[in-house]
Parts: sequence; structure tokens; C-alpha cells
Amino acid sequence: MRYLLLVSYDGTEFSGWQRQPNARTVQETVEEAADKIFGRKTPVTASGRTDAGVHALGQVIQLDTEGSTIPAERLAACFGQVLPLDVKVLKSVSAPADFDCTRSAKKKTYRYRAYYAETEHPLLRRYAARLERLPDLEKMKAAAKLLLGEHDFAAFRSAGFTSKTSVREIYGIEITRTNVPFATVFEIAVTGNGFLYNMVRILCGELFAVGCGKEEGITRAFESGDRACLAKTMPPQGLILEKVDYGVPLFGTEEL
Amino acid sequence: MRYLLLVSYDGTEFSGWQRQPNARTVQETVEEAADKIFGRKTPVTASGRTDAGVHALGQVIQLDTEGSTIPAERLAACFGQVLPLDVKVLKSVSAPADFDCTRSAKKKTYRYRAYYAETEHPLLRRYAARLERLPDLEKMKAAAKLLLGEHDFAAFRSAGFTSKTSVREIYGIEITRTNVPFATVFEIAVTGNGFLYNMVRILCGELFAVGCGKEEGITRAFESGDRACLAKTMPPQGLILEKVDYGVPLFGTEEL
Repeated sequence: MRYLLLVSYDGTEFSGWQRQPNARTVQETVEEAADKIFGRKTPVTASGRTDAGVHALGQVIQLDTEGSTIPAERLAACFGQVLPLDVKVLKSVSAPADFDCTRSAKKKTYRYRAYYAETEHPLLRRYAARLERLPDLEKMKAAAKLLLGEHDFAAFRSAGFTSKTSVREIYGIEITRTNVPFATVFEIAVTGNGFLYNMVRILCGELFAVGCGKEEGITRAFESGDRACLAKTMPPQGLILEKVDYGVPLFGTEEL
Repeated sequence: MRYLLLVSYDGTEFSGWQRQPNARTVQETVEEAADKIFGRKTPVTASGRTDAGVHALGQVIQLDTEGSTIPAERLAACFGQVLPLDVKVLKSVSAPADFDCTRSAKKKTYRYRAYYAETEHPLLRRYAARLERLPDLEKMKAAAKLLLGEHDFAAFRSAGFTSKTSVREIYGIEITRTNVPFATVFEIAVTGNGFLYNMVRILCGELFAVGCGKEEGITRAFESGDRACLAKTMPPQGLILEKVDYGVPLFGTEEL
């Protein structure tokens, strides 16, 4: 039987999703929980990797078991009892054996949160990056329009991982600014058909830099493929994998 | 010279405000930073204590120095360099020598955050408590009205600390419900002229319990002074000391 799990994690204490030696990863933590629940080695597959320190509200993972009698909708609670506090299964459903949570994903939405303030804010720091200057929202929105649509995002990735192609399509970018006491919080929600390694954090770094007066480097980055056209990569704690969209609501009506 | 500091902290790793042996406290952490900045023992006083695990967005503290040449508005940044990430000074100003951040406080606002969800949520857990059932907002609001005004809140405190009187006045209680993906978040903001030990957490516990169907025990609690009329104390991680109000904006226009 194939199970699909909607998984949320606080990435602070994880070295990312993917299993690796001598590091605490989300994958290993979830697989160890699955091994306990099913009494046998139970590998899990995610819709995609997230980096060290990056959070997830709606990561989707799948696992296969033989002969399990646990009803799919009960599995979230079973995982809740064995998983640590910083990773939990919010919902669980069954899926057809040909469903593939990696390849069937149609869109993903990431949200990046950052705040500007004169000093660091202890209650914002865990899930947002601090900006050293106050960016202009309209400048950011104007630059974001250049990113929409299908482009070769070769300049928008860090070295270290290779994909067959660096062409991706961005469907939407929403940027909001909210005043909270003694700070201004910016959120950038990016929806696309897929993202290269560090692409969201590089893209957000460029938008914040343009908002703070840097000349827009997006056009030249598309032409040249040169990472150096763009501003620095934003740090991981501001990033959340918010939603993986399969074109149908897999987990019910409360979905984003 | 008397300095006033607006201090924010993430209470998770602190055993509360007040200095005590063999425990990491906010007071000791701030005093150690002040000792470094001023090069001498520099005690600090807060508007009031907060318990272990309770957060602050706008705690107000004061300290006195002799012969310091640091401009008051620069002090926040000086503290920023020596304080750890989970406690920072958001703003600093000078104050007259007869200002007393404890006795001059006219109102305090605490905010309690809790969420209802089928399973625990890793990204909500740090700053909110989990409710096991979904409370009814209108029932909570109706019960909250009984708390408004001046009452003897003797039943609304935990043993361990004594105050001269247990009469307090509550000026306002605002309760909101917000839907987030796969969870419902409740916030209770309580403003009063002062609060007894654990009073906000007991009061919120009763409101959530009444929302979940418990018979209202507030009227009997006022009459009898008996803690047993009320539901259980809520856990600390949902509580934030949001604002201490001195009747004038001490820290400028960005204030709450």
C-alpha cells in the first residue's frame, strides 16, 4: 500500500531533508519513525529536497508498505507518537501505486520571510532573516515581474547540484510588507513548476537588493547565465516550503 | 544617568526573568551584558517578572550608570553586540532619575496564543500551545466579559508568590480566531493594571475550557476565591508580554 504524508518541519536543527552521514536529517528521522511503526525498513521519498535550516509547512512524502493494517488516515497520529517535536505528519492518505510524489508535482510554492529593524528581534529570528536596510516594496514588485514566465535560470543556482535543464517557469510572485512593533516584515511567495538549488534564496536576495537600490541584474543574468549579476543568497531560516501542488487537493479541504 | 530599555526575548531557553542560582535567566544575561558595556556591576530592574518559558516582545527595564558617555539611543546597538540571539534590546532612551519602570507602569498587555489541530504543528509549537479540542469563539467571548473590570482575582493565581492585594482591574480582552493550513489559531490579548502569578495563563485556560463546553467557573471563583473553580493553567510557550504602558510613548512612534 502506498501512503502519502503531508509533513511539516522546523528546519533549524536539521541538516536538510536528504539523508547524509553524521548529520541529523529529516529523511533519516522520518524513516526511523516509519521503521518503528511498520516493524521493518521503510524508505520514504519526498517531493524534493530542502536545504539545511529550511522549514516546511507542506512537504509531501510517500512510502510503501506491504500488509499494513493501519488505516491511512490514522497514520499521521501514529507518526506523531514517535517523531520528535520539530517534525510531524499533519495529514495522511492512501494513494494509487502509480502516484509519484516527486514526478507528479505540478507546482511548488515557497515563502521567504525577512524583516527590517534597527536591531535583531529574538521573536522573529527563527523564521525570518534580518535585512540591514529597508527595501522599497514597489521596486521589488517591479523587479519580480521580470522573473515571471519561462526562463533559463542558470544564473539563479548555486554550484553543487546539477539538473538536466535549468529552464523553469515561475507562475507567480506575491510580495507583502507588514508593520509589526519596531520592525517591518516582508514576505515573498514564489510559485513555479520547480526550482534549482538555492534558486528561491538567490531570487529573493536579488529582489531585496533591488529594493534597497541595487541596479536590477535579472535581465543580464538571464542573458549571460552569470551568477555574479545577482545579489547574495539569502540565509535559510527565512525559507519555508509552503505547498506542493498536484493539481488535485490530496489532503482535504483545509489545504492551503 | 538612568536608561530605559525595551527588551524582547524568546523565553524558550530561559528559566524566566528573575535571577536564581543554577539557571539561565534573562535578568542575569542582561546584567552580564551591561557589566561588559559599562565595565562595572550594573544591576537592572524590570517592569515585572515573567515565568520560565514565557516570551516578551516589549519588556521594559531600567539601569543606572555613573559617568557613561554612551548616548542613550546608541545603547540598544551596544547591547546587540554582547547579548545572545534570544534576548535583544529593541530601543533605548534616557529617563528622569525619578522614573520607576516597575511602579510607573499603568497597564500591561499579555497575548496568549494557542492552536487547535489534529496533530502537533512543528512551526507553531514554539510560540503557541496546542488545544486538544476546537473551542467556540462566541462562548469564549461571553465568558471573557465576566472578567472585565475590577475584581478580587485570588482564585486566579498559583501558590508561591504573594502580593499585598489580589484585586486587579482588567481593561480589555480581545479574542481572535484565524484559520491557517490544517490548524485554527486563537489569540487572547489581555490588558490590565497588573497581573498575579500565573493569572493570565489561568484566565486563558478557563476561557479555552469554557469554549470547549466546560461550565463557566468565573463567577464562583470571584465569590469563593477557590482556584478549583477554574480549569488548568495553560503552558508558558503561548504567552508573550506584549506591552507595558506608561501612559506616554517612551520609545517612539513605532510602538504598539
